[in-house]
Amino acid sequence: MGKPSIPKGTRDFLPKQMAGRNYIFNVVKRVFKNHGFLQIETPAIENLNTLTGKYGEEGDQLMFKILNRGDKFKRAINDGLQKETDFSELALKYDQTVPFARFVVQNQNEITFPFKRYQIQPVWRADRPGKGRYREFYQCDVDVVGSDSLLCEVELIQIYNEVLSALSIPNYTIKINNRKILFGIAEVIGEEDKIIDITITIDKLDKIGLEKVNEELLSKGVASDAVAKLQPIIKLSGSTFEKINILKQFLSESQTGLKGIEELEFVLDFIKKMNLEKSLDLDVTLARGLNYYTGIIFEVVCEGFKGSICGGGRYDGLTDQFGLKGMGAVGISFGADRIYDVLLEKDLFPEDAMQGLQVFFVNFGQREASYIFPLLSKLHKKNISSEIYPSSAKMKKQMSYADSKGARYVVLVGSNEIESGLISVKDMKNGIQEEIRFEDFLNKL
Amino acid sequence: MGKPSIPKGTRDFLPKQMAGRNYIFNVVKRVFKNHGFLQIETPAIENLNTLTGKYGEEGDQLMFKILNRGDKFKRAINDGLQKETDFSELALKYDQTVPFARFVVQNQNEITFPFKRYQIQPVWRADRPGKGRYREFYQCDVDVVGSDSLLCEVELIQIYNEVLSALSIPNYTIKINNRKILFGIAEVIGEEDKIIDITITIDKLDKIGLEKVNEELLSKGVASDAVAKLQPIIKLSGSTFEKINILKQFLSESQTGLKGIEELEFVLDFIKKMNLEKSLDLDVTLARGLNYYTGIIFEVVCEGFKGSICGGGRYDGLTDQFGLKGMGAVGISFGADRIYDVLLEKDLFPEDAMQGLQVFFVNFGQREASYIFPLLSKLHKKNISSEIYPSSAKMKKQMSYADSKGARYVVLVGSNEIESGLISVKDMKNGIQEEIRFEDFLNKL
Repeated sequence: MGKPSIPKGTRDFLPKQMAGRNYIFNVVKRVFKNHGFLQIETPAIENLNTLTGKYGEEGDQLMFKILNRGDKFKRAINDGLQKETDFSELALKYDQTVPFARFVVQNQNEITFPFKRYQIQPVWRADRPGKGRYREFYQCDVDVVGSDSLLCEVELIQIYNEVLSALSIPNYTIKINNRKILFGIAEVIGEEDKIIDITITIDKLDKIGLEKVNEELLSKGVASDAVAKLQPIIKLSGSTFEKINILKQFLSESQTGLKGIEELEFVLDFIKKMNLEKSLDLDVTLARGLNYYTGIIFEVVCEGFKGSICGGGRYDGLTDQFGLKGMGAVGISFGADRIYDVLLEKDLFPEDAMQGLQVFFVNFGQREASYIFPLLSKLHKKNISSEIYPSSAKMKKQMSYADSKGARYVVLVGSNEIESGLISVKDMKNGIQEEIRFEDFLNKL
Repeated sequence: MGKPSIPKGTRDFLPKQMAGRNYIFNVVKRVFKNHGFLQIETPAIENLNTLTGKYGEEGDQLMFKILNRGDKFKRAINDGLQKETDFSELALKYDQTVPFARFVVQNQNEITFPFKRYQIQPVWRADRPGKGRYREFYQCDVDVVGSDSLLCEVELIQIYNEVLSALSIPNYTIKINNRKILFGIAEVIGEEDKIIDITITIDKLDKIGLEKVNEELLSKGVASDAVAKLQPIIKLSGSTFEKINILKQFLSESQTGLKGIEELEFVLDFIKKMNLEKSLDLDVTLARGLNYYTGIIFEVVCEGFKGSICGGGRYDGLTDQFGLKGMGAVGISFGADRIYDVLLEKDLFPEDAMQGLQVFFVNFGQREASYIFPLLSKLHKKNISSEIYPSSAKMKKQMSYADSKGARYVVLVGSNEIESGLISVKDMKNGIQEEIRFEDFLNKL
């Protein structure tokens, strides 16, 4: 067997990385809880038919499917079946949102609506791996289901701001748009049936530029006069206020489009009262690839990092497909992995995120160890992290181990110390060494 | 589409269940950290060849394999391939231990040995689902790799005791045995090559009884005189001291067997000094199904619950297979899902495990809401969980929502309150209602 490896796009997390990740998760959780959101979890595995068709064609392709086992597998082989879906009935989660919609319908009698929940779990996408793009990554999702109120959007913008400033994310911008505006635009240019294609293409503006966007629109069958009409929208600029005025005119014939504007104005009005409007940017090229969004959508970017670090939006009616009609729903998601990369790159992890060992006992042999074990028990009872080296290895080796654990105190208990009843404690922060009774040391900590 | 469902053997966790689970995880983590263990994570997905052959034949069958996608899938179909392994290169984790061994080898230059780590993640087994047996379940593993010292076993027994008593698990027993003793037994009866079969069969004693164990041993090709010789061992009883004496005689011709006894005696001696020996029970029928154990093994059972709630043991040399020789390793695992079932059944969750909402604001309309949002910000800054109902629904509906969230205080801010500058606060614990300035309320909390 060759060198061990892990699947591409997946990662091991070493203790230091875990400490950084836990720091992010703890901030996120604290803010979610403060806002009255409750934690749930859904399985990593879902029935394939729960997930297929919810994310567009690309999503169906990039989903990790579980191979049928035993008899089911043999039957597919013997019957000469040839499609991937003939060999699979289960898939790994592609995001938290669709499984959450399934969860809400399945558990509707156990929960009170509006239901505010958060969820911090991994998802899997067989995307081409790259910087900030993994095949297994964590999403921290926070959603409200069972309410049409735009106050939910307002609260989620607050949450963006609270989390991102608690994490000291530098110069972030919450891009905001409304799928209704995009639909209105498609309507005005007479291409209602191509709305998904149009939004997906517009979404690429930053990546491929205006010319390629126009080419792609034409190649996707959007009429050339429609593409021409679309130009002022794609090139829209100015302040949020100016943009809204241009959009109002452009969309004057589209009821849906105007509704989209009205929703945005309501939210912006509230946000202004809380002095959070500087964090927002109306971006009409923002579309979000996923099929299920219906209203206001979000994406967060920050200085010096390519790609978004958060996403989200309103997805009314997603539960319809699972048999529960008329449910309003909106949520946002923090990309923990990308936020981690930002914090690491900009050295923004606080020093105490990685807490070291408090007390390390050098091991001089079995007799000393059996004297020390009960002392360790007392330390553990007081939640003081402490350990003894598992064997009486050379001092140098033991000290370098203590160092790697970031030990604050190194304690020596040899036969002299056992006789005298005093232990020898070295404070590794200031180098001071003292002889002290164990009970006094314990009280001092 | 019919009623939504999830794959058999998997579960959704509602907020109340999550609170219980988090309570368990927090206790476990606290104890692990106290002992100087550091957290890591490995991906849910591993390369199939990392996992196959490590868990015995049953393990290979019960592993969830990921279906190859796109061209790889088509090639297998076109080439008429017929084995499950022709259609898969990846699998879901079956336990934490084998991926951990892979992790250690792959990251050996980043870690200091002995490496003490813990890991709390789900694993997947396509086992027949049943009470306490799930297809996706969490393992809380704590291991030391890079040490042969039996002090590691001693520390792990301490950890068992600290966690299980912190969780108030009733009358638990830590069953202990040694694979070396089992190997010695196989050697004495002249069936060294059947050790795995023998241990797996002996492991079933509790389930199928002595007669069936003997039948199964014979059917697996163990000679009848060997089965006869084995009887005193399978039926071994008495105190730990008595058992050890019988074993010493039985194993007098087996060097490995005697080494196993010696190891047990060392550990028992230490444990006795810490007055923990009552929690231990030497059980020579304990074998543990997994292939990789080499030394002392553990399993924990508790009163009123069928099946084990924890497992573990020494597995020296597991990293050999990934290219790192001579590594001692030992670890234990807490079955969070079974522990949850025990705590639930016996009503052992502490009352404060499920913390409710602290402050709920009734929503009387948009004007009041925009007055309340900045107050909420102030509460959130002080980490006081608080929310406003997202719409001005009927009072009854809002109050029943507040109730479902376990709200401690319900706050009314109508136009009167806005004018007077006082808010109306009802303490839901004692029913007392008062008019109070918001700042005073904030300070009171």
